Formats: sequence, C-alpha cells, structure tokens
Amino acid sequence: MRTKINIAVIGAGRIGRLHAEHLAYRIGGARLVAITDLRKEAAEECAANLGVPQAFQDHRRVLDDPEVQAVVICSSTDTHASLIADAAAAGKHIFCEKPIALDLAQIDSALDTVAAAGVKLQVGFNRRFDPNFRRIWALVREGTIGETHLLRIASRDPAPPPIDYIKVSGGIFLDMMIHDFDMARYLIDDEVRELYAVGGVRVDPKIGKAGDIDTAVVTLKFANGCFGTIDNSRQAVYGYDQRAEVFGAKGMVSTENNTPNRSRLSTSEGVREDLPLYFFMERYTESYLNEMNAFIECIIEEKDPPVTGQDARVPVVMGKAAGLSYEQNRPVTLSEIS
Amino acid sequence: MRTKINIAVIGAGRIGRLHAEHLAYRIGGARLVAITDLRKEAAEECAANLGVPQAFQDHRRVLDDPEVQAVVICSSTDTHASLIADAAAAGKHIFCEKPIALDLAQIDSALDTVAAAGVKLQVGFNRRFDPNFRRIWALVREGTIGETHLLRIASRDPAPPPIDYIKVSGGIFLDMMIHDFDMARYLIDDEVRELYAVGGVRVDPKIGKAGDIDTAVVTLKFANGCFGTIDNSRQAVYGYDQRAEVFGAKGMVSTENNTPNRSRLSTSEGVREDLPLYFFMERYTESYLNEMNAFIECIIEEKDPPVTGQDARVPVVMGKAAGLSYEQNRPVTLSEIS
Amino acid sequence: MRTKINIAVIGAGRIGRLHAEHLAYRIGGARLVAITDLRKEAAEECAANLGVPQAFQDHRRVLDDPEVQAVVICSSTDTHASLIADAAAAGKHIFCEKPIALDLAQIDSALDTVAAAGVKLQVGFNRRFDPNFRRIWALVREGTIGETHLLRIASRDPAPPPIDYIKVSGGIFLDMMIHDFDMARYLIDDEVRELYAVGGVRVDPKIGKAGDIDTAVVTLKFANGCFGTIDNSRQAVYGYDQRAEVFGAKGMVSTENNTPNRSRLSTSEGVREDLPLYFFMERYTESYLNEMNAFIECIIEEKDPPVTGQDARVPVVMGKAAGLSYEQNRPVTLSEIS
Amino acid sequence: MRTKINIAVIGAGRIGRLHAEHLAYRIGGARLVAITDLRKEAAEECAANLGVPQAFQDHRRVLDDPEVQAVVICSSTDTHASLIADAAAAGKHIFCEKPIALDLAQIDSALDTVAAAGVKLQVGFNRRFDPNFRRIWALVREGTIGETHLLRIASRDPAPPPIDYIKVSGGIFLDMMIHDFDMARYLIDDEVRELYAVGGVRVDPKIGKAGDIDTAVVTLKFANGCFGTIDNSRQAVYGYDQRAEVFGAKGMVSTENNTPNRSRLSTSEGVREDLPLYFFMERYTESYLNEMNAFIECIIEEKDPPVTGQDARVPVVMGKAAGLSYEQNRPVTLSEIS
Repeated sequence: MRTKINIAVIGAGRIGRLHAEHLAYRIGGARLVAITDLRKEAAEECAANLGVPQAFQDHRRVLDDPEVQAVVICSSTDTHASLIADAAAAGKHIFCEKPIALDLAQIDSALDTVAAAGVKLQVGFNRRFDPNFRRIWALVREGTIGETHLLRIASRDPAPPPIDYIKVSGGIFLDMMIHDFDMARYLIDDEVRELYAVGGVRVDPKIGKAGDIDTAVVTLKFANGCFGTIDNSRQAVYGYDQRAEVFGAKGMVSTENNTPNRSRLSTSEGVREDLPLYFFMERYTESYLNEMNAFIECIIEEKDPPVTGQDARVPVVMGKAAGLSYEQNRPVTLSEIS
Repeated sequence: MRTKINIAVIGAGRIGRLHAEHLAYRIGGARLVAITDLRKEAAEECAANLGVPQAFQDHRRVLDDPEVQAVVICSSTDTHASLIADAAAAGKHIFCEKPIALDLAQIDSALDTVAAAGVKLQVGFNRRFDPNFRRIWALVREGTIGETHLLRIASRDPAPPPIDYIKVSGGIFLDMMIHDFDMARYLIDDEVRELYAVGGVRVDPKIGKAGDIDTAVVTLKFANGCFGTIDNSRQAVYGYDQRAEVFGAKGMVSTENNTPNRSRLSTSEGVREDLPLYFFMERYTESYLNEMNAFIECIIEEKDPPVTGQDARVPVVMGKAAGLSYEQNRPVTLSEIS
Repeated sequence: MRTKINIAVIGAGRIGRLHAEHLAYRIGGARLVAITDLRKEAAEECAANLGVPQAFQDHRRVLDDPEVQAVVICSSTDTHASLIADAAAAGKHIFCEKPIALDLAQIDSALDTVAAAGVKLQVGFNRRFDPNFRRIWALVREGTIGETHLLRIASRDPAPPPIDYIKVSGGIFLDMMIHDFDMARYLIDDEVRELYAVGGVRVDPKIGKAGDIDTAVVTLKFANGCFGTIDNSRQAVYGYDQRAEVFGAKGMVSTENNTPNRSRLSTSEGVREDLPLYFFMERYTESYLNEMNAFIECIIEEKDPPVTGQDARVPVVMGKAAGLSYEQNRPVTLSEIS
Repeated sequence: MRTKINIAVIGAGRIGRLHAEHLAYRIGGARLVAITDLRKEAAEECAANLGVPQAFQDHRRVLDDPEVQAVVICSSTDTHASLIADAAAAGKHIFCEKPIALDLAQIDSALDTVAAAGVKLQVGFNRRFDPNFRRIWALVREGTIGETHLLRIASRDPAPPPIDYIKVSGGIFLDMMIHDFDMARYLIDDEVRELYAVGGVRVDPKIGKAGDIDTAVVTLKFANGCFGTIDNSRQAVYGYDQRAEVFGAKGMVSTENNTPNRSRLSTSEGVREDLPLYFFMERYTESYLNEMNAFIECIIEEKDPPVTGQDARVPVVMGKAAGLSYEQNRPVTLSEIS
C-alpha cells in the first residue's frame, strides 16, 4: 500500500485552490484532509468542490490535529512568517508560498524555528519546476554548455496589477523580479555578489504616482565570474513573456515561450504563430504540480526540499539590494544588505 | 449545485485507466461510480487507486444500475459493437473507444440500436481535441484560409507494435491510418469520394511476413474538390510524428510536433531542440481530457456529440477502400465499399 | 594565371540576363565574350550594361567563333533542341535552360548529337543547387537518415502565369511539376518507376478553359521502395512555397522556406514572421549562381556535368506519365512512356 | 545613360578587396577606376583580378586625379583620420571604414575638414544595412511596436582575434562593442545618456594578460527613457551570434541568426538545425553591398549619407565611457567624455 501524507491547505484564494486541487486529485502521495480560510465560506466551498472532508476558519484546527503531517501556506504574505513558526512548532512539514516575508529579521526568525523543529520547509518558487527552465538548469549542471559566462532573463507580465496592489506590493524588485532573482541563482547554480539596477515608469504613470516603477533592468555579477541581466516590464501586450538564456564556454541554451498550440498560419499578411500562454496560471500549471509533487516526495523519502529557506531569503536580499541600487544609481554588493 | 453525470468505465486497461482518472478527478461534471473489467482484480485496483466506490467483473452490473447514466467502453475492440447495443438498450449514453468494429454490418447494427434508444454516442477519435489540430479546424471553418485545395497529414509512430498485435490489427489502414482518415474528414470538413493507396514493407520484414505493410501513402479526393495525402510509418526513430497542413485559396496552416520543452541548445555541433513527445499517451493527454469533457457536456446540455456514429463508420469504409486500392493498385471510390 | 572559359549567352530575356550578369561579374572562371538575341537591341543593351564586347542577332556568330568555348542557351524552349545540336556540332560545351524539348524524339536527337560531339551538356535544373535542397541531398547521400522511405515536396507558385502562357506551356506537369520531378530524383538519388496523378482547377476557372489544371498531387513509387508525393498549386497567396522532406530509417530532414530576414514581431495580434521570398528570381538567386559555377568548373576540370542530358530527359517522361495518369485516373509506369 | 560615379579604393586588404569587388561588379552606379595599397603588389593583384585599369602604391595619385569623384578608405585605422582630411581637401566624397580614430580630437578635426569641404562622408557601420536589423529599425520607426522600453543586443564572435591584435585593438569596448553601440543608437533612434559596464576574462587568460577583457555586459539609459543591454563575448563556440530585440508599448521584435540553410534534421538524438553563418564575411555580405549602394546613391542623388560623421563619433564616446565605467565600477554619463 502506497504511503500517503495527510496534508492541509491554509488559505483558499486563487493559489490555495490550485494547490488544493492538485493535492486532492493529482498527487498520488498526498491525502488532502482539510482546508482553512479566514473567510469560512471560502474554505467550505473549496472543500465541497474537491470532496475534502474538513473546512475550518481557524488554521489552529489543523495545526492541533496530530493526523495532519504537513501544511501548505497560501494565506496573505504578511501572515507567512508567523504561520511558518506556528506550524514548525506544531511539528508540521511546511510548504509556503513566496515570499516568507519582506523583512529579513522576520524571515530569519521563521527559519530558526523551522531549524529548531527539524521539519521540512519548501518555498514556492514554482518556476524552477517549469520544463523549460528545468532543461536549462540540467544542461548547465551536467556541463553541456561549460563554465557559465552570460545569463539573460526576460520576464514581462501581460498587464500590470491593480494600483492598490502596487501600493502594498513592496515594489517591482521585491514583488516581481524576486522570481527572476531566484531563477538566476537556480540556472547559474551560484550566488550573486553584486548588482546594479536601472528602471523607470514606461507603462503607466499611475504606477509612478503609487511610488513604484514598471520597467527595470538589473545587471548581476555572480561569484563564479558569470554576468547576467534581468529585464522586467509590467506590460507585454503580446502576453506573458518568460524566457531565459545561458551562454557558456561550450555552448548556449535558450528557451522560447510556451504557446497554446504549434500552428503556423501563412496568409498574404505574413506567417503567424499564436501568442504565448497568457499568464502564470496557464503558463506554469505544470510547474505548480511538479513543485507539490517534489514537496510530498521529499517528505515521504525523507530528503531535503529542492527549494530551501535560504532560497527564500536570498532573493529578498537581492530585491532590497536592487532597490538601493536603483535609488542611489550605483552598484550594490549583497553584503551591504544581509 | 452543479449537475454531475453518474458514469461507469468498462475495461480497466491502459486507456480505460486514463479515462477513469480523468473522470474521477478532472472532469467537474462527472461522478465516476464504477469500473468493470473481465479481470476483476484490474477493476478493483483501479477503483481503489482512484477512490471509486464500486468495481465489478460483469459489465451488466452497471448496465442494470438505474443510477448509472453513461458508460465509457474501453474493452477490447471485438466487444465494442455488442456492448454498445447492450448499453443503448439499457438507456445509457455511450462513449466508445474507436473503432466500433471492423465489420460494417456490425457497426450499422450497433448504430441502429443507438438510434432506436435515443441515447448519445460519442466515438473516441481523440485527436480532434488536440489543440494543434483543433486550431487548423477552426481556421478552416472560419474561412481564414479560404476554400481548401490541399491537405497533407504525416502520421508516424515511434516504434511498431508487437508482431502478435500486427497479426490481429486489421492491417495498417484500419489500425493506424484510420485515425488519419478521421482527421482528414475533420480538418477539411468534407467527405472523401475516392482514394488511392500505395505502400510496402520498409521498417521490418517481420511485419511483411505477418501479412501487413508498415509504410503507406494514400491520396484523397474530397467531394469539395480538395486533394489530400496521408503518409504513415510504423517507425519514426525521432519519436511520434503527428503533423498536418491545409492549404487553401487564402492561406495555409500547418502544425509542428509538440515537444517536452521549448529549449534550443547551440553547441559547436549544431542547434538542437528536443524530440517530439514520445507517443500518444504523452502527446494526446490533453485531447483525451478534452474529448471526455465534451462528452459529459453534451449529456448535461443535451447537445449532439461532437464525434458521431457516422464519424465512426466512415473511416472504416475508407480503411477498407485503401486496402482494396493497395491490393489492386488502382483508385477506389468509397461507394464501392459502403 | 587562372584559366578562363570564353563563353557566350544565347537569348537575352530575363533568365539570359541573369546568367550573363553572373558570368560577367561573379564567376571567376568565365569570360563572357558575347550575347545574342533575335531582338538585336536586347542583346546590345545587355552587353552594354555588363561591359561585354560583342552583341549579335544571329547565334551562328558565336558558334562560328573559334574563341568561344561554351554557350549558355536561354532562348525560347522550342529552339533548345536545335541550338543544342548546332552548338554540339560546332564543338561548344553547352549549358541549356530546361526543358530541352517537350518531345522525347527531339530530346534524344539532341542528346545523340552531344554524345557524338563529345562536348559537355548541363541542363538548368537550378534548384538542385539551392542550399536547402543540397543539404537534404547531402544528408541522404551520406546515409544520415538511412534508407529512404517517404518523400514530400510542396511546390507552389505565388501567382499563376498569364493565360496565354498557360496555353502553350505544355500543362502543369511539364511546365511546373517538371522541376519537382527532377527534385524527387535528385533527393532520393533513385529512379521513379510508377506514378499516379490527381488534380483540378481550384485557383482560376480561366486556367481550366485554357485546357490545363492549376492544382495537382502526384504519388511516386521509386525503384528502391521509397514512396513520394508532390503537390503543386499555381497560387499560394503567401508567396513562393518551396519545401521538401525526406523520411528514412534513421531520421527525417525537412526544409523551411527562405525569408528576407529572420525577424519575429510579437504584438497583441500574434507572433509574425515575414513571408517567404516572393518568387524564383529572389529565392533561387544563389542556386543560379552555383549551377553556373559548377558548369564552368566541369569544363575547366574536365569533369562530368552535375546535371546531365539524361537528367533532362527523365522529368519529361515523368511529366508525360503524369498527364496520362491524370487523364485516365490510373497509375502509370514510366516504361509506358519512354 | 545611367550616371556612374568614378571611385577609387584605398587599401587592398580583406575588406578593401570586398568593397572593390562590389564596386567593380555589383553596383550599377559606380565605376571602380583605381586601387591603391602601400604594398603595391596587393593593389596590382586586386586590380588585375577585377579588371580595374589602375593600381597605385600612393593614394595621392587618386586624390590628385580630377576624374576620381569618391574614395573608399580601407587602410589601417591609424591612417583614417588623415586620409579623410586629405580626401576632403581634394574634394572627394568619402566612404571610410570604422572607426575614424580612437582619439576624439582626431575625429573632430577630420569631421571639421569634411564639413569645410562640403563633401559627403559615410562611415562603415555596415550592420545597419543587414536585413534583420533593418527590419527592426523599420518597425520601430513606423511605430509598430510603440514607444521603446527595452533593448537587448547579443553580439558574440566565433573566436577571439590573435593576441597581438588584442594588444593594439583599443580594448573590447572600442574594438568590438563599438558596433553594438552604433546598433543601439540605430535601433532605438535615440541617444544614450548614461551607461554602466561590467566584464571580465572568461574565454582566454592570455587576453587578460594582454590588458583586455573578453566578456562584457553594458547597460544603457537612453534619453527617451528606454533601457538597453549589450553583451559581448569573444568566443561563441556555435559561431557568430548576432541578435537584437526591441520591446515597446505595442509589441516586441527580435531577430534570429542567419543560417546557411533552413533544414531541420530529426534523428533519435534530437532535432537539429545548422549553425549560424560563421563570421562577418559570411553573415554581413549583403550588408556590405547595401551600404556601398547607399553611399553611391547618396552621391548621385545628392542626399545625406545614411551613416554620418556624428554616427562615427558617438560610438567612440560610448566606448570610452564604457571603459571608464568598467575601471571605476560606476555608471558614467556620456557628457563626462565628450
């Protein structure tokens, strides 16, 4: 008989519902036993749809349940650090959506609790599990392209979020580019030592009025001597643009965007392919499933999680360094921050 | 509260298990209530894995159950026609894997029963639901490429089936090209009037000894004046090759194979992309899910199924015409067969 | 000091001017010494533009000139056979545009004269020298794709020629598909034994009234067991469509159309590439230059021409076989014709 | 009768011979009347090969010849500025290979002479005439992609030059990236205000010992608010990598590398395309021809040259700014240099 991990999802918003569906139906090693949400009806509706036996308003109900072995934290960002601490203290393994917090002291405190409790913590940098980026990573790791010299990441959203979200987002470097900071570390398999950020308001003046920028380019210097660039835009009118390229001593690997089909239409106007998949729910479906499978597998097989607490911390440091670099228009070393 | 159709799967082989998994977990409008298989352990194991309440050896158990509204027939081909008749007589809606039978009289008899019973019948030409081919179909239907002039289908398996299978398969035209005959009718949205088949043993002499060929090309004349070609090979060493192209008065649309990722690796050896997805379970995952969703939807919304009994019959006629054409090395009209 | 072949061009029409320009400027081993044309001003204008010393109305002037070592015949098709005979009798090496004639007896007579005179004859099947098709040929020849099983050629013009041209063209199989018959033999490096042709009027009813068809598909059986299809259309609205694909035991090679640039434009409408190069003067520029270089080289190095008289004859046989097959709607063996 | 410009080429090295061949044969508006080179045999051999009437050791011979209307300066870089001054003083129109000089005072002095003489000066930034980059430029200019937000240029040589060349090259920013600085200004159609350079020795330690770096990334801030990155490597093992991408408010346009053919080979190993054209002589053949045609046209039609003296000056300023930025690891404004 196959081992099944009893697991609960905390937070029944969009991403919580996605993870819940995967855990209910598509991940053989998991048994989804409860869903919680501060809005109890949300938890109940989600549980009913998926045939999950329990729904609670209070997450303590699952932390106090000795049958629950692991939790998936999908609540709002400001609750992540304390929920991690609570869950670790209760001896639960933890999958937490990124970021843990935007405050480094809070992150460190949460990670300390996890270490003390000896539970597993995996953070939701799902893009690492996308087949395109995973292919680059594998080719770099196995040495196919040799020592890495150059990295390029293009990461552009199809449309900006609401201005109210922008105001509380922490800014483009911590809200949007944080994913790319993680990707850069992942693909090069090395740490960044210094970075330099430029940017501006090119998409929507309202974003500027809200105190943020919507277009940014960051240059990275890695410890191993590789150089990288990341560009972000809050609005690519052709859809979600998610590409990366690594150039090394023995070759180069790059990825194209995923499209809904592989058709090519030739008319008197030109040869046309369909647009990239629109946004992260479409593009990264497979990666969300893969990351959760990996989490369950690391519990069952008692392995280290593939995305650690340290992996959660460093991109926050990089985001803060990028913010400082942008403000002062100078290169900033990561050691200035952490 | 959402309507759910109570459904049972008959046959727990590879394709039966696939449909069962989709019905159990991924199709909101269905409730999978039972699985049957002549090998009772197979039915029981599948039911246990998916949390399905009932498993039977005898398919009569589900036909006799008034709660069951629909069945999915995934048993061996020689049982399809009689199971359709039984299920129709029992008032169940029917999804049946292709082909219904290789004998036209059996097909006609089964279709008569379905018509008499007034139940819905959908046949498993799943490739119609593949996003690539669906895109071609849509562009043809909406007139984007104008009147159709030329069709090309390449359909090549990664490796031949076992020789024992070849012997009972009905031959390449009825076993393999039957999918492409359906695709041809689907993409051009018209009927073939005449065809001409050539072929030979190019892959494995054992296939020739078993009385079949492994490589074939068929030319089609459609009623609307379009011409088409289909080529089949039992072995494409680079994987499952499934492409189509339609050329018309206003343009041309073609599709590439699906790949596991969109990476491009440039080394001193060349620029390399990954091979196509290996075989139908990988390539057509999405189409299997889509076809079952469409079946459930046509029951709930009381619509006609998107793939009808007639759609099941015609490709068999075409396969027989192709066999005759190949034997006699002459063009054969479909009216000679049906 | 580099050897230079003294050469004259007969016929200063579009293709004659193209060859003359190449011979005057871009082919190191040739010295273009004269141009002739029945319209003397055409010859003179061309000679003046290119700085060629002599221009004549009468091609005998170059055949009688002992300094002239080779001629390039670009006059109208009906003059090719007699010009070949005259040039051969005068001891000149001959490059002749295709076809030599549409009458096999005329071709054979011309080839006999060439053989008796011991001069070299190369026929203008320029597409063999296109880098795309040459790449396929090389991969087939070096065994990279193994024994050949399937061939597909798509060959579609951007727009039909004038109806007056259609009337005297010899029909689609001898006027247009003749290039593809040559390509088929070239790519598979083998002879066709039998073929089957279908076709119709899909582009313009005027073509039908002129006694021709504008859309055709031919199935080929090669002596080595390979099967092939060729499709032709007189009008691809997206431009000149010239693609081929060879599938074999060890792999498959295919080619895309050439485009004026490699840009990709992504907007909210889709991802767009530019159309293929419009027609043969743009697409096959390089192949025209390459074939003439090869001709000059075979004279200087006393080698056999890469496209022989037999290569000129067989496609005419195939064109006639295709015509017969189309008329009688049955497969025709080449031995019925030649 | 067509106007022809009498022109002379100064310097019969690799690039001089290329321009001479184009002027002799492929540019209708030019008559190549003389070639000069300090090595007289080089001039004579080139003239003999191309049928050019005069060859000289001393460039004064062509400057003193009143029949000569224009000169093409292809001698070594250190002679460019004085040759421009001499030619301008002699009233000749001037095409000069880039760069004019690495010293800004020398450039300014040369440009002053040109202005005073009222002759035309075009500088050899040939890549602007490449069909790929020209396509991007046109789409930006016509507003198809809207206001520009982001620019990415990848520019990587297939192999480093000899170390002896590296030592006198002026360094990667002035020798190699200078082309990309020009390209950046061209594609965005705007000026850079500030840049930031990083780089290192990743390819060959000998380059480091020679006082240069071989890998570099520069971030650009344009006056119009666009941001750009350029990356350079002295060694891309897969060949000459020359791509650009511009992202704007209404879309994105990018270009792929040119390849010798458009074949795709599918075997059990993967799907393979051929490598990019190896180096600038292959990749930019067409652009060299186009730029010279443009120069001749601007003389005949009395238009302004498409690449001006200012276009020659600014990339040198940018190269110096990049060098300073790299040395001091800080952003540098162009106004600090010029």
